Amino acid sequence: MTKAWDGFKGTAWQENISVGQFVQDNYTPYDGDESFLEKSTPRTTKLNEKINKLVEEMDAKGGVLDMDNAIVSNVASHKAGYVDQENEVIVGLQTDKPFKLAFMPNGGLRTAEQCLTDNGYSIDQELHDFYVKNRSTANDGIFRAYTDDIKRARHSHIVSGLPDAYSRGRIIGLYQKPALYGVDRLIAEKQQDLKKIAISSDENIRLREEIWLQIKALKDLIVLGNEYGLELDRPAENATEAVQWTYMGYLASIKQANGAASSFGRIPIFLDIYIQRDLEKGIITEFDAQELIEQLTLKLRMVRFARTDGYNELYASNPTFVTTSMAGMGADGRHRVTKTDYRFLHCLDNLGNSAEPNLTVLWDARLPESFKEYCMKMSVKHSSIQYENDKLMQEEGYGDMQCISCCVSPLNPEADKDKGETHNLQYFGARVNVLKCLLGAINGGKDDLHKNQVFDVVEPITTEYLEYEEVLEKFDKSMDWLTDTYVDAMNIIHFMTDKYNYESMQMAFLPSKVTANMGFGICGFANVVDSLSAIKHAKVKTIRDEDGFVYDYEVEGDFPRYGENDDRADDIAVMVLKMFKDKLDSHKLYKDSEATVSVLTITSNVAYSKQCGNSPVHKGPVFDENGKIVKEPEFFSPGANPSNKAKGGFLDNLASLSKLPFHYANDGISLTIQGAPKMFGKTTEEQHHNLVGILDGYFTKGGQHINLNVLNHDEVIEKIKAGIPVILRISGYCLNTKDLNEEQKMELCQRMFHEKLIG
Amino acid sequence: MTKAWDGFKGTAWQENISVGQFVQDNYTPYDGDESFLEKSTPRTTKLNEKINKLVEEMDAKGGVLDMDNAIVSNVASHKAGYVDQENEVIVGLQTDKPFKLAFMPNGGLRTAEQCLTDNGYSIDQELHDFYVKNRSTANDGIFRAYTDDIKRARHSHIVSGLPDAYSRGRIIGLYQKPALYGVDRLIAEKQQDLKKIAISSDENIRLREEIWLQIKALKDLIVLGNEYGLELDRPAENATEAVQWTYMGYLASIKQANGAASSFGRIPIFLDIYIQRDLEKGIITEFDAQELIEQLTLKLRMVRFARTDGYNELYASNPTFVTTSMAGMGADGRHRVTKTDYRFLHCLDNLGNSAEPNLTVLWDARLPESFKEYCMKMSVKHSSIQYENDKLMQEEGYGDMQCISCCVSPLNPEADKDKGETHNLQYFGARVNVLKCLLGAINGGKDDLHKNQVFDVVEPITTEYLEYEEVLEKFDKSMDWLTDTYVDAMNIIHFMTDKYNYESMQMAFLPSKVTANMGFGICGFANVVDSLSAIKHAKVKTIRDEDGFVYDYEVEGDFPRYGENDDRADDIAVMVLKMFKDKLDSHKLYKDSEATVSVLTITSNVAYSKQCGNSPVHKGPVFDENGKIVKEPEFFSPGANPSNKAKGGFLDNLASLSKLPFHYANDGISLTIQGAPKMFGKTTEEQHHNLVGILDGYFTKGGQHINLNVLNHDEVIEKIKAGIPVILRISGYCLNTKDLNEEQKMELCQRMFHEKLIG
Repeated sequence: MTKAWDGFKGTAWQENISVGQFVQDNYTPYDGDESFLEKSTPRTTKLNEKINKLVEEMDAKGGVLDMDNAIVSNVASHKAGYVDQENEVIVGLQTDKPFKLAFMPNGGLRTAEQCLTDNGYSIDQELHDFYVKNRSTANDGIFRAYTDDIKRARHSHIVSGLPDAYSRGRIIGLYQKPALYGVDRLIAEKQQDLKKIAISSDENIRLREEIWLQIKALKDLIVLGNEYGLELDRPAENATEAVQWTYMGYLASIKQANGAASSFGRIPIFLDIYIQRDLEKGIITEFDAQELIEQLTLKLRMVRFARTDGYNELYASNPTFVTTSMAGMGADGRHRVTKTDYRFLHCLDNLGNSAEPNLTVLWDARLPESFKEYCMKMSVKHSSIQYENDKLMQEEGYGDMQCISCCVSPLNPEADKDKGETHNLQYFGARVNVLKCLLGAINGGKDDLHKNQVFDVVEPITTEYLEYEEVLEKFDKSMDWLTDTYVDAMNIIHFMTDKYNYESMQMAFLPSKVTANMGFGICGFANVVDSLSAIKHAKVKTIRDEDGFVYDYEVEGDFPRYGENDDRADDIAVMVLKMFKDKLDSHKLYKDSEATVSVLTITSNVAYSKQCGNSPVHKGPVFDENGKIVKEPEFFSPGANPSNKAKGGFLDNLASLSKLPFHYANDGISLTIQGAPKMFGKTTEEQHHNLVGILDGYFTKGGQHINLNVLNHDEVIEKIKAGIPVILRISGYCLNTKDLNEEQKMELCQRMFHEKLIG
Repeated sequence: MTKAWDGFKGTAWQENISVGQFVQDNYTPYDGDESFLEKSTPRTTKLNEKINKLVEEMDAKGGVLDMDNAIVSNVASHKAGYVDQENEVIVGLQTDKPFKLAFMPNGGLRTAEQCLTDNGYSIDQELHDFYVKNRSTANDGIFRAYTDDIKRARHSHIVSGLPDAYSRGRIIGLYQKPALYGVDRLIAEKQQDLKKIAISSDENIRLREEIWLQIKALKDLIVLGNEYGLELDRPAENATEAVQWTYMGYLASIKQANGAASSFGRIPIFLDIYIQRDLEKGIITEFDAQELIEQLTLKLRMVRFARTDGYNELYASNPTFVTTSMAGMGADGRHRVTKTDYRFLHCLDNLGNSAEPNLTVLWDARLPESFKEYCMKMSVKHSSIQYENDKLMQEEGYGDMQCISCCVSPLNPEADKDKGETHNLQYFGARVNVLKCLLGAINGGKDDLHKNQVFDVVEPITTEYLEYEEVLEKFDKSMDWLTDTYVDAMNIIHFMTDKYNYESMQMAFLPSKVTANMGFGICGFANVVDSLSAIKHAKVKTIRDEDGFVYDYEVEGDFPRYGENDDRADDIAVMVLKMFKDKLDSHKLYKDSEATVSVLTITSNVAYSKQCGNSPVHKGPVFDENGKIVKEPEFFSPGANPSNKAKGGFLDNLASLSKLPFHYANDGISLTIQGAPKMFGKTTEEQHHNLVGILDGYFTKGGQHINLNVLNHDEVIEKIKAGIPVILRISGYCLNTKDLNEEQKMELCQRMFHEKLIG
């Protein structure tokens, strides 16, 4: 270890594996500005051009360049692949060719094969037969165990987006570990852990096998490294190796698992330590340092998974959520901004704006002003960075090495169960449509669009005008059914994923003792809150068909909406969140995980809107006799956004959001917001400065997350209509509008573009 | 159901699936003698000849005629196969050709492939690669989870014969169900069961998937039936169909699982009801009835599994334990002997003596004298029937539809958990060598043969002469370690078998709610008891090597042995059994199963003897420098047999055995005994009559099991030496001596052949 750890401080992290302790002992906070940053190296520029050309080719071919159909992807399943070997400083591809999509059937064979056929590729019949006869997938297991309630809930889209046909995602391995310790040490550590697990229960038998599989994955990781000529068995000895080893840990994980979100973690501060050491030793220059981060960034931008057309409807533009977390504050009071945070953000300038990696700044008012100003400068320029409230999340126990998974979900991958720390991984579970639940409650459990019985725990409301208390009581009972059903589905999904599609590589980078949270989500939030507000504060009349089924509503009078900074509505928002969280807390969850809630929709708000009927506050879609939509719905706003109909300016929105107690939704509360640049100031400097103040205020008051888009409405809309790509943060992630379908573009155009700070 | 159930009595079994209730309501006790029995039909004779010819061919080829290597065997994996279609009344083969062995890798790939290579067949490389990369087997899972203790225990053979590389066996499906109800009804029933299982726990999620898999297997069973032109979806409408449907249920099960014991259950009484109805209707004659049973019997005699050479060392002659249970008493006081019991036994005369099916008579002194005499007549003639104590086992809760699994293990496959009934299936677990444990205890946990440390829970004994109390204390502690380790192994094996090699077909014929026992076994029993008796009642001197390691013993003085009907030894036997059972009872077992103990070795007593050093009462093997045996050991006696050195006659042996409380070993206490015919009487009639009296006495006093061989020692030994095959009951099953290896023959020759009733 002499060479690898030469010059590093501290011994505790040497004795017991701890990336957090290593960072704490060795990182260098940076208080300066961006003036030290360098340009791209020529080879990076060449590589970037080559990749851009491949992306163009891929777009021209409809989004897919090539696909594997017969090799089941795993850590060591493929030979080495390169984009442009002589210009590649950091190597490693998901398959043997750039953008050739891997075949990953263990989550679900049908889905994996649908990916092939949706893209015009053929199915390997022999492999198909083998799977059908001899190898169950997670999807097989899940549907075997699903109850009738779950199937109805799923069919009616009141529960949707469940990860029941591919990998669950949202897990973040500590990909720094191979670099810091070398894989041999990691194997030895896992072997020690194995010895400590007695056979006292089925759980421990399962855990012993899981750890064994982790060790196998680590051994395969060494094989993968060898394939690229890398000695991953030992620790990285310099910055180049540290970047390369870390990327290999990540790459190995995504070769095995194709979850919706494959986030990268708290990497910049870690790599900064190695870069800083090499800079101080004089082995590299800033030019080299920037090259390393850009070469890594290019690899992260290349991550792709095979997806079905149906998937792309939910998650427009095939996001990979390579969320990369930076900045934040340490428990010791030092900020955690490093030069490498700047280097990552600087890629947007050097390599061009990009949706991935999903750059995430953990914000705190105490961060250096120069860094905050730089962030705002980059956001105004690129609209491709998200910000999250570091302190708020730390207070919920995610620790000062927390990192964001997917869009808004904090995790503490190194959490030690024995110390009472938690959230070292997440069992992801998409979301329920609470508006459908409310509409169902009013109709005695009937589906709001199709009138079929979905649940039967309440009698229908028969009055012409809705009474708030009655509605609330039935909504509460219906939510009981919905959470029971949702929890059942989640327990099944994660049991079966562990059984048939265990992410042994990612798990190998996590503590052996799992202390997970289980991520439950909500959509239709603003419309539920506003509907309840209308019922409470105005008069809502039911419009019924010949069967007495309520298919529409008329609101008489005015009422406050969530997002207008009016407590009458915002209190209802808090009540709904608390109701959901309390109900979830009453359940026993898989592997004793803890229920956490997110209010987040990705771009699925578009799909959800289409599967939801009229409410007191919005119009659903209109179908023809064949079930085809002839009139699009008023789209749900994304995530925890207020409805697009809410009055009030930019700051009113923020104020309403910041009233939602994070504790009730500590998996994240996502706000995606657009503001015209001029609203923030006349000059760009003024804009940057004022935006810093706005974010400081929002986060200090308790807001958790902001997708900040600084854009002019007309300009964006014009570009979209003209087919000119715009990169913007859409809902917890960033995308290029060229990848949106027509409905998604339409929804984007419906969104609120603020021009005033106060409404 | 009109036609299928026409003439059957009772309605309870029609409303709720219950084979037991159907039998209770419909069977006809038979009090007459064997004079009604008929000869074989010509087509049966032809078929038998054809099969015998195939067996000769197979023997000439070294025991295997043909093997599959690329089709993974399952319920519906193969096309129909026939031996001699025009003479086959009952159809169905394990593969598409007679005696072509199926490929069954889900228990363990290496073992399945070893079966191929041991027999000169090649491995399918593609299938091999697929399994290695994508499909774990039970064996994979088990070894991932095994602890170091288990691996050491296994390596030293102190625990051995574990079903960790093939199917576990010992489960008996209610193969009567397709005949009585038709498969469609069984599917509907399982679908109802599925609805009753809420997702309250991992266990219930697992159970839901298991029931789903059972339903899938039932659907496949219909496909298998169609392949043979049978309509298994509906109930059987006559005796031929009842036999055929029942056999198909069994066949489907053994196409999927290759456990060491694939027992058939309480079939004769069930089929008798259909035969009786057809006889009464005048659709068939006795000639036809006998044909049906013989055609079925021929199919059961053909059952074969691919086995490795190593397996054959433990279980000589590749027994399949198609144990078929008959006779016994009903709870209502009526005996359960039917004409079909006679018909099954009569096959030994008509078709020739045979090791399989493993004919098992549930004995009770109250059975009709004519039947008991007939049994004894057949035993004297064939030595191929075993007898078990019906009343004793019923008192332990196995019910009046109990049937024997493997050799001595009672089960009640229809046990209803909700009624507090138990033992509807068994989790099988081979056995531990308690003599090795005793010898290890004396040497501080060191292996008695190889001196390596196996366990470390006791200090070695250092005195020259062994003190009984000290030895007992250390033996007790060592047995704690041994049972802890054994239980861990069993919990792992059954968890992983359910995970990777679930016998969905057999389970489909069992109640959805499992209420299992877990079968723990003992070998080295007589030698442990005798060693302790020698230490207590004589003086035992230790012989040590230069390290103080005890490698031999000298006994000074005389002492009683187990089997001599001397309470001083027999009390020690009871104490050892109780100790083992009490220790097992203190553990939580997989799926809340109940520990049961068997004292049973099959032919593995030969292998165990070779893995065990000198004890105070016997000599172990002598090895040369290369670890090759140069002098064979004094072989362990089989099962619960007294040592071959025990004095006393036939009845003394029985007396000692009958003192062992069945409750401490209610998975079975196996006695295999040889008596010269003349000892039982001068004429064969006298012999039959006296033997009836002996069995009545033995079972009334509490004996559980007897493998009755009525043979002259010299005659048998001469035949064996001359290579002339003899069929005899060897240890819980029956075999043909042509299939024994040299050591096994040697052991057989060492066995006690009684010539006196009292010693």
